[in-house]
Order: sequence, then structure tokens, then C-alpha cells
Amino acid sequence: MFFASDNAGPVLPEIMQRLNDANTGYAMPYGNDDIMDEVRAAIRTAFEAPEAAVYLVATGTAANSLALACYTQPWQTIFCTPVAHIHEDECNAPEFYAGGAKLTLVPGSDKMTPDALRRSIEGEEVRGVHGPQRGPVSITQVTERGGVYTLDELRALTAVAKEFDLPAHLDGARFTNAMVSLGCTPADITWKSGVDVVSFGGTKNGCMGVEAVVFFDPKKAWEFELRRKRGAHLFSKHRYLSAQMAGYMANDAWIDAAAKANANCARLAKGLKAKGATFLHPVEANMIFAAFPRSAHQRLHDAGAMYYIWEGSLEGDDPDEMLAARLVCDWAGTDENTDKFLSYL
Amino acid sequence: MFFASDNAGPVLPEIMQRLNDANTGYAMPYGNDDIMDEVRAAIRTAFEAPEAAVYLVATGTAANSLALACYTQPWQTIFCTPVAHIHEDECNAPEFYAGGAKLTLVPGSDKMTPDALRRSIEGEEVRGVHGPQRGPVSITQVTERGGVYTLDELRALTAVAKEFDLPAHLDGARFTNAMVSLGCTPADITWKSGVDVVSFGGTKNGCMGVEAVVFFDPKKAWEFELRRKRGAHLFSKHRYLSAQMAGYMANDAWIDAAAKANANCARLAKGLKAKGATFLHPVEANMIFAAFPRSAHQRLHDAGAMYYIWEGSLEGDDPDEMLAARLVCDWAGTDENTDKFLSYL
Amino acid sequence: MFFASDNAGPVLPEIMQRLNDANTGYAMPYGNDDIMDEVRAAIRTAFEAPEAAVYLVATGTAANSLALACYTQPWQTIFCTPVAHIHEDECNAPEFYAGGAKLTLVPGSDKMTPDALRRSIEGEEVRGVHGPQRGPVSITQVTERGGVYTLDELRALTAVAKEFDLPAHLDGARFTNAMVSLGCTPADITWKSGVDVVSFGGTKNGCMGVEAVVFFDPKKAWEFELRRKRGAHLFSKHRYLSAQMAGYMANDAWIDAAAKANANCARLAKGLKAKGATFLHPVEANMIFAAFPRSAHQRLHDAGAMYYIWEGSLEGDDPDEMLAARLVCDWAGTDENTDKFLSYL
Amino acid sequence: MFFASDNAGPVLPEIMQRLNDANTGYAMPYGNDDIMDEVRAAIRTAFEAPEAAVYLVATGTAANSLALACYTQPWQTIFCTPVAHIHEDECNAPEFYAGGAKLTLVPGSDKMTPDALRRSIEGEEVRGVHGPQRGPVSITQVTERGGVYTLDELRALTAVAKEFDLPAHLDGARFTNAMVSLGCTPADITWKSGVDVVSFGGTKNGCMGVEAVVFFDPKKAWEFELRRKRGAHLFSKHRYLSAQMAGYMANDAWIDAAAKANANCARLAKGLKAKGATFLHPVEANMIFAAFPRSAHQRLHDAGAMYYIWEGSLEGDDPDEMLAARLVCDWAGTDENTDKFLSYL
Repeated sequence: MFFASDNAGPVLPEIMQRLNDANTGYAMPYGNDDIMDEVRAAIRTAFEAPEAAVYLVATGTAANSLALACYTQPWQTIFCTPVAHIHEDECNAPEFYAGGAKLTLVPGSDKMTPDALRRSIEGEEVRGVHGPQRGPVSITQVTERGGVYTLDELRALTAVAKEFDLPAHLDGARFTNAMVSLGCTPADITWKSGVDVVSFGGTKNGCMGVEAVVFFDPKKAWEFELRRKRGAHLFSKHRYLSAQMAGYMANDAWIDAAAKANANCARLAKGLKAKGATFLHPVEANMIFAAFPRSAHQRLHDAGAMYYIWEGSLEGDDPDEMLAARLVCDWAGTDENTDKFLSYL
Repeated sequence: MFFASDNAGPVLPEIMQRLNDANTGYAMPYGNDDIMDEVRAAIRTAFEAPEAAVYLVATGTAANSLALACYTQPWQTIFCTPVAHIHEDECNAPEFYAGGAKLTLVPGSDKMTPDALRRSIEGEEVRGVHGPQRGPVSITQVTERGGVYTLDELRALTAVAKEFDLPAHLDGARFTNAMVSLGCTPADITWKSGVDVVSFGGTKNGCMGVEAVVFFDPKKAWEFELRRKRGAHLFSKHRYLSAQMAGYMANDAWIDAAAKANANCARLAKGLKAKGATFLHPVEANMIFAAFPRSAHQRLHDAGAMYYIWEGSLEGDDPDEMLAARLVCDWAGTDENTDKFLSYL
Repeated sequence: MFFASDNAGPVLPEIMQRLNDANTGYAMPYGNDDIMDEVRAAIRTAFEAPEAAVYLVATGTAANSLALACYTQPWQTIFCTPVAHIHEDECNAPEFYAGGAKLTLVPGSDKMTPDALRRSIEGEEVRGVHGPQRGPVSITQVTERGGVYTLDELRALTAVAKEFDLPAHLDGARFTNAMVSLGCTPADITWKSGVDVVSFGGTKNGCMGVEAVVFFDPKKAWEFELRRKRGAHLFSKHRYLSAQMAGYMANDAWIDAAAKANANCARLAKGLKAKGATFLHPVEANMIFAAFPRSAHQRLHDAGAMYYIWEGSLEGDDPDEMLAARLVCDWAGTDENTDKFLSYL
Repeated sequence: MFFASDNAGPVLPEIMQRLNDANTGYAMPYGNDDIMDEVRAAIRTAFEAPEAAVYLVATGTAANSLALACYTQPWQTIFCTPVAHIHEDECNAPEFYAGGAKLTLVPGSDKMTPDALRRSIEGEEVRGVHGPQRGPVSITQVTERGGVYTLDELRALTAVAKEFDLPAHLDGARFTNAMVSLGCTPADITWKSGVDVVSFGGTKNGCMGVEAVVFFDPKKAWEFELRRKRGAHLFSKHRYLSAQMAGYMANDAWIDAAAKANANCARLAKGLKAKGATFLHPVEANMIFAAFPRSAHQRLHDAGAMYYIWEGSLEGDDPDEMLAARLVCDWAGTDENTDKFLSYL
């Protein structure tokens, strides 16, 4: 019963197979392997972006930091929410990669709103050379609290960015979960919605450790290559990144995995609701923030269930007090497992 | 006939097996996986360093840059040779990670000598606050030209560093090739020879993409963890780094692989010598720098052999002109392959 | 009628005299001038800190950034208010000098409160290696809105910092205005209140361009010297920084200047109040944030008065609408000038 | 008898006068003062560059680092000589300001030669993404050893830079000494010779602490302003930088001061030659590197003469051993003083 994160499960069998298949003979290093050609083509096709520049790195933080650095001058500020991964969970990596840039936190509890974004943007660069200058807008899709921006919501945000001539970055660590949730295409959720560069996540959705960075405007390509190398993120035996991504993109493996994760999540949410849990955030992809009594938490804990208690603490006297849990589902979860979890509530 | 580099071959079967074996169920992320415990123990045992802090990253440049950054202030300078990987092949990654530090190139064509090192160190910090301050000494073992420092040579270098109270870093991208060549222990070649931190390479010797950073003084541990995260080099599904290194360290796989690579190299060198090739550098591990006639290069090239022409160019009229090649052997080479290569000379 | 800032007035005559006096013969460069010895002694005496490390730089941003950098690791976050100069007015200089560190904005409209500070500190470093680590607390005295922390308020803040073992920095661009306002000693307002390092401002209070950085713990001295040089803030003809500060410290010139500025401000505030202005913030030193009708602003504007309209705009139909002004007084203002200004209301 | 440096003498009386004159009333801060308009016009006229972007900073290291940073990406390398001030005397400031860039030392003992420069440039960027990329060429005029590049020499260097599409920076800490030595115009020695940006020194030639950065292509203007502010080098009371530079440019004060320094140097060199001193470098501006017997050094030392012993040491038995001195002349030296110095030889 593991619901602690989607970053801790196994690799999809078809990806593992691709890794095994790739493990023969010599391959050109540093991204010049043949499999990368396949990956590039697959991603360009999937995103309907024949000119896109496509690169692989091994961590989501690398994808975000390097993508943002290509669009951020050191004297600029990146607009994101107070709960954005780039702000809370990357130990200043974006600041490091962008040479000492700042992050401006657009007020809000999870989803960024166009009004809040506009006010934040307007609030910067009013002091001329003295304050930070306006930099890119970074949007997280799926959000940190499990929400999914509709295409309209996404476009409203990038429209504000464009109004100020600012680039838009999409942190898509859970990109495919969002896409599946929306029932849209990769193009819909990115360049057709005004996104300039996307961190297209693989790791949380069944890969071993690979993320693509996709620039819809290829003029950033060479800069990215230099930043990737200088950041020590260019792999010599790159074919093993390529093989993961190739296996991921082939035969809709990525979509099937996200659909499975979302379905697992929906089943769990339905069960929680039936058991009387209350929800802190709408369940729109593969994450649940729900509250249920301490006594149920205790039973789950005793049974070895793994997840984060989001608000409150297991320590406490009142067995009926509602404690919030964060529950994240991935492709590897099973109905049996979900039902077993629910049985403890 | 692939001799272009040891960074382009396949993964050792036993490591691939460990990866497959590891691919089941959930594992704690970010280095808290059980396999990492095994790795830590194995490396501490191998290095006879029960207190050592042991970390994994995926690239050699990350290992070097992060290890050095822990010992380098931004206003310092790192001592290395003009041909060091950290100087020539990392696109300023060490400068980036060390916050804008400098590299001082100790004169020499490959191996660093104690006298040259001392003169270089003495040449810095004579200007008080105006010049760069003295930082760590970085030594590459196997050297960039295929040489191996004897233990005496190594100790003479670290002795100079200690004289000035400077830490010593070992870039061990080909650590095991050197160790096998010297017939010594990991401890001999590191802390017993005055090395404070080592980039212990796996990728070039049969891993998929993993390097260990081993600090013999564990007080740098937490700083390294923060630098690794901030550099975006902390893997969520860390077990797949651990599994590689576990497979590498088990049953002497690392030693056998390096021994195989060195033996392949010795066979190739012997054959080259017999064919009249001249050598630019002594052959001491798994790299050869040798010159032979353009006509032989042409035949090899036509037959699809892959390697770098180090000096001169295939273009040219004189079939007898000697052109130098860089030939790198790895564990995956075969005698048949070597002999086939030699047959074209 | 210049009330736009205290950074635009002339240099105190006695400081100008010291500069002229210093302009003879040769003097050792880079802070080794004899006048610096006098400055060091004067500041140590004034602050009752015989061991303090004392340095001069030419801008307040340099003083803040360099002082903070000595106490901030690149993976840490500096706690300050949302209106702090280091956040709003230094174009990411603190982030630059601290190697890509972050600023955490302690909620509040001007003065930092101990409770808000504690909550902010507690909010960081809960994510282990993933989030930013806790760094120094930076307190601005006089605040950006003209407030002065009482000694009790100051101590309550540094007590919270100490609780978490964090250093405390005082941005004292208007240090002496605060000191005069409180009627306390330099020691009271700094190390006796738990401050570890202070940016002791001179420029806004009658100097040409000089700020002292005073470390009460001298162990940061050499690091500061290296950071200052590397930041290009070490003056060769340093005697002209020293002479300013020597003139400033001599014969209570600094105290008299701040007292004059504060008195000018009090007279102006009293007059504004009499004319019916409303105050956005208490007037505690040399800054006023007050609202009065658009028509009065228009008359002042037509008469050439210089100050910032803080809220609202001169453009508008309603002559009675209250618009807020920021009015800053310095030592060079005169009663005539103040009264003239008031006459337009 | 002060010949230690030209960074330790007094300020020209006419500049001091301008500072005193400027010290009245209020002036717009941060470079918006009226005197800066005068400075901008004067420099544009002197350089025959009506479009040039002109900025002031207070130190030579700031001028160099900020100018270079505008032309250097963090993954690039700056070409300079092994004795360049930016390499030896700025404590990694150029690396810091350029975000971790590298310096490539073009071999040579002082003046850079076009052949050596071409070889150095060709030696970089041959490794694709792996090595540093080619960045600007920085030329020092007057050189660190007192040499002056002829216009032909200068043009030959910038021609090599242009061949590779690299910008050329001139470190003109002693710009006017070189100009006077060559008898040329400011335009001749800069943009007419292919220089893109110059650090136009004031401090060493009679100012208190001011250097201009002049971009002949104004498109770098805004970036420079942001970098200057972020580097904490933007002065609030900027008029006092402006006044220095205004006094410097007025009535040929800058030219007269450099001519005086060069003449002092010529007199000293002539006297040294007559006394049998030998010269390590040609004397072409205001610096001398000359050897004379230890006994003479001892007499000078005893008489209180200030200068650096460049090679050798006063300690030693042989009174006839030749020790080299570095002797730097400035505008404030007098014939009496020079002759007194010579009398000790």
C-alpha cells in the first residue's frame, strides 16, 4: 500500500525491455545515438511540432532548471506559485542555474489565476533598474495539489504572460496525467496554449529517470546543449536515456500508464468519499488530498501503508480528529491494493 | 572495431541483471533505498574506510564538479593539468559549481609533477587579496593520456598539497583501470596516498551511468547532499543508480571489467608495436596513443573502425605519413576484434 | 523643496573638508591608509566593540550583499520583509553575491514581527535536502516605511533567529536616524540586541558614498576581504572612503546630521498633521508617508517640489481625493524649506 | 619618493575643485544627475562616438568585470595574457561577474601577439559542447609591463578576434598614458582599431575613484545598467562620480596628467640608463622594470623610497647583484623627486 509518491515505483516493463534491448554493442555517446533520433521524431510527432528542439535529462529538477535558465537572465524573476516545485523542492536549483535570479511567488494556494499573475507581473519592474526584471512564467501541470488547468485556464495564464512579452514554461512532471485527465493532445496543452518550453516528465510515470525538455522555438537549442553540459547533465551513455524515452513513447505506453494512474486515483477517491473522507482539493489527476479520522490513519499505519500525513499528526488523543493525507497513485498500483487500503478506513 | 572511447559500450550483464532484479515494487526515493545501504557498505569495505561518506551521481562531470565544489571557495583556484578533463571537457562545469572559481593549469603535457605543482601553488596567493587563493589539487588517475601515477608519484603530489594545507581530489573516471594496472588496493590509491575525495568512476567501466563520490572525511557529507540536490543531480528513483553500483561492486565485477579492458589494451599495444607503430605515451592502462601510416588508417577507416585521429588528418597525399590515433579499450572488446583491427595495419 | 530621498543631497561640509585635507601626497592603497586606522578605531569605540572587523564599501547594496554573503550558503534562504531593500531595490544583488540563494519574505507590511518570523523559519527546512535551508535574518532599521524597531522589538527578532541558530544582519542604511530616534547607543542597537553584522550607512546621512560593514565576530574578516575584492568593491585610493567615514564619525557629525534630518521630519510631520494630512505609517525617524488632497499635490508639483507620490496619481479629476506622498528628510533641509512646502497644502 | 603604483597618489586639483563645486543642493541620483550629461557628451566627443553608451563605476575591476560580462556567456572563455590584471589581480571577479566563465591564457610574457592569440582561439571550441566556447578577447593598454601596443599591433589583434567573430575589450586602466605615448586620438586606439568596449581609466591618472565603461555599440546599454546595479556598483550620489570624470575630461586635464606621468617616467628611465641600469621591458608609458645593484636598492630603501622589488630580494650578500624594480610614475611626481631617487643609484 504505497501512496507516498509516484517517484518510487518500478519501471514499466516495456521500458525495461527497451533498456535490455539497447544493451548491445557500441553506440555513439552524448546524444548522438540512433535511439535518440527515434525519440526526437516520436516527440515531435506526438507534439505536432516538427521543428521542436528535444533533449533528455535524468531528473525533473534538471529539466525545470535548465529550461528556465534558457529564458531567464540573472537579474530577472520567475513567476510561479508559492507551492511550486521549483520554489519549494529544488533547493534553489532554479536560482543556481539562472545565475542568481529570483522567484516571485504569485499569491494563491495552488492554481495560479490570471488576475493574480497580472498583479504580480505588474508589481515587478516598476522600479526601473533597481528591482528585478520580469522573467518567465512557470506553470505546473498537474499542479502540486493534484489540480489540472483546463485549456482555457492555461491559455488565460499564457495570455497574460504574452501581454508582457514573457515566455511560458510548463513544469510537466505529471504532464501525461494532466493530458489524460483533459482528454487533449500534447499540442493542445503546450504550444497551442501558448507554452514555449515544457519539462515533459517521464520518471513519475513509469520511466527509470528521464525527462524531456521540448522547446517549441528551436533557437534555444544550442544554448540548452551548453547549459546541459555545463550543468553536468549530458550523459555519455545517452542511449540509456533514449531507450527509456523511446519505450515510453512507443505504443502509447506513456498514455496508458497515466490513464492507469488516474484510474487508480479515481477508484481510491471514490472509495474515500464513500467512507466519509473530506477533500482538501478537487481530485483531477493522480493525487488526492483528503482528510479522515486519526483512528483510520493509525490502522493504515499499523498495516504498513506508506503516504504522507499532510496536515496534523498521528500523535494525538482524539481518534476522531480528521487528519489530511496526501495520496499519490501511479501506474503500478492495483485495484486489490486500493481496496485493501480502503478497507482500513 | 570500436576504440573511440570507453564511454560508448554496453552495460555489464551482471549490472543489467541487477537493474532488472531491482525493478519490482516500491523503493524509498532519493538515496534512501535499501540497495544504497548495500552500496555504501561495499564501497566502505573496498576502500577500508568505514567512516567514508558515499554518494552516487550519474555523470563523471557531476562527480568531479560536486566533489571539487565542496572543497573550493569561489575566490580560489583549483590546480590541475592543462589536459585535465575538468579543464578541457566539462564546459566550465567546475567553475559553475564552485561559484566562479578559477583553474590554474600546472604546466606539463600529461602527468603532473610535484615540482611543477609546487611552483604553481607558490605562484598563487602571493598577491594577498588581489589574486585567487589556493584551492584543491585535482589529479587524474588514469591520466588523460593513458598514464598511471605510481603510488609514489601520487603521494609526492599529495604531499605537496598537504604542505600548503590544500585538499587533494582524484578524478577516477578510470579508477579501476589504474588500480588494476598498479595491482594495489582502493585504499592504497586514495586515502593511504593522501587523497581526500575521489570521483570513483563506474560509467566507463561497464555501468550505465553512475559514479560514486567518496569523501574520506565525512564532515563534507551534508554539504555534498545539498550541492547535489541544488545541482539537480539527486535521483528520485535512486535505486537504479544503487543497483548499478551494487552490481558493479559485487563479485569483483568492477575489477574483472577493468582487467579485461587493460588486457584488451595490452594485446592491442603489443600488436601495434609488432606492426611498427610508434607510441606517443607509455601504455599503462586502457588507452593507447600510437602513430602508424596514413594508408593503414585509411584501410581501418574503410573497414568501419571507430577511433579518433589524434594528430594529423586522413586527408593527405603521403600514404606513409605517420598519423597518431587515440585508441581506448573497454571490457567489451574481444580478442577477435583486436586482431581484426591489427590485421589492417 | 526636495523630499524625494535622502540619497540626493550634498555632502556634509566637514566631510568635504576631510576629503580636501586627505588630498595630499601618497597613501597606501586598498585599505592600508592611515585614515582607515582612525576609522576602525572610531567605529570600534562608538560600537564598544574593540574586536569588531570594520570595512568600507561605497554603496549600501554592496554593504548588504557582501555582509549577507558571508553568512549565507547558496542553498540557504535569507529571511526579510516583502518591502526590504534587499528584496525590492537591489536587482537581485543579494542572490548574486550569495551564489544563487533565495529570499524568504516574512509576511507583513513593514516591520517584521517575531511571530511571523518564527512561522517563516519553521516553514523552511521541513523538506530536508529538497527545500532551501535556513539562512540569516535581515532586519532593516529604520524600516522602509519610516518605522523604528524599539530595542525590545529588535531583541525579540534576534531571539527568534538565535533560537534557530541563525545569524542576524541589520540593514542600517539609516542606522543613525534610528539610533537618534531611540536615544540609544550604537552597541544597544546592534550586538547588545543580538545583531551579528551591520551595514552602517553613511551615504544617506551626509557622506558622498561610503558605508561601513561591521562584523562583531571578527572571524568573518578575511572572507569579507576576499568577497569585497572579488565583487570589485575594494578601492585602490581607499583613503577617500576612509576620509569620508573619518569626517562622519568625528565630533558627532553623524549624530548631528541624523538628528537634523529627524528634526526636519518632525517639523514637516507636525505641519502636515496641522493641515489635515493623514498618515499611512507612524513617523519615527526621517520618513513620512502621508496623504493629502490632489489639489495640494498639484500646487506643490507646480512649485517644483520633488517627492514620490506613493499611492494614486496626480492625474485625476477629483481635487479632494487624498493621494499619499513619501517624503524623506535629510540633514540639509531647512526650516524655511519645510515651511514653504507646508504653505502649499 | 613614491614609485610603488599610480593608484596611491592624490587627486588632481581641478578634479577636487569640481567635487567641491558639485557639492551644493540636491541632484538626481543613480546617474540621472546633470553632470553625467556633461560627462556623456564629453566622452562621446573625445571618442568621436556620438552613439556610444557611457557609464561610470568606481573601480577598475568593476569596469573590466562588468564590461566583459556583457560579452561573455558563462560557458565561454575570455582570452587574455597570463599577466593580465583580470587574471592575476582581480580575485576571480571576471569569473564571478561572467557567471563562472573561464579565462584562457594566451601564452606570452606581456604583449599578446596575433599568432599566439589565433592559436589559443583555435585551440578552444574544437570539442563541441564539451569544452568552453570562445568568448571575448581582452587586451590591456598600457600593458602590465609598461608596453604600449601600436595601432598596427592593436588592429592585428582585433582582426584575429573579428575573424572568429569575437568581441574585443580594452582594459584601459592606463588608457591615456598609452594614448599620449602613441600620440593618437581616443578613437584611433579604440573603435577605429576594432575595440568594442573600453574600460577607460580615471583612478590611476588623477581621479579619486572613477572609471568609464564605453560601449561603441549601444545595444549593450541596458544590460550593462542591470549588471551594474546587480553588482552593487550603481551610486546613489552619482554626481560625485560624474564630477570627477567631468573635471578629468575638461580642459585636457586627463591628457595633461598622463603626459606628466609619462614625462616623469622618461626622465627617470633616462637617469636609470645613465646610471647603468638594465631594462627588462621597453619603457613606453609610465612604468619601468629595471635592474640595478642591491646596494643602490638598499640606499633607496633606507632613504624611504617606495617601490616594488620585482625580481630578487633585498636580503642577500652580494651588493653588486642586480635586482629588478618596478617603478610607476604618476602625474604628481616632480623632477626634484625623480632626481633625488636617481641620486641614490
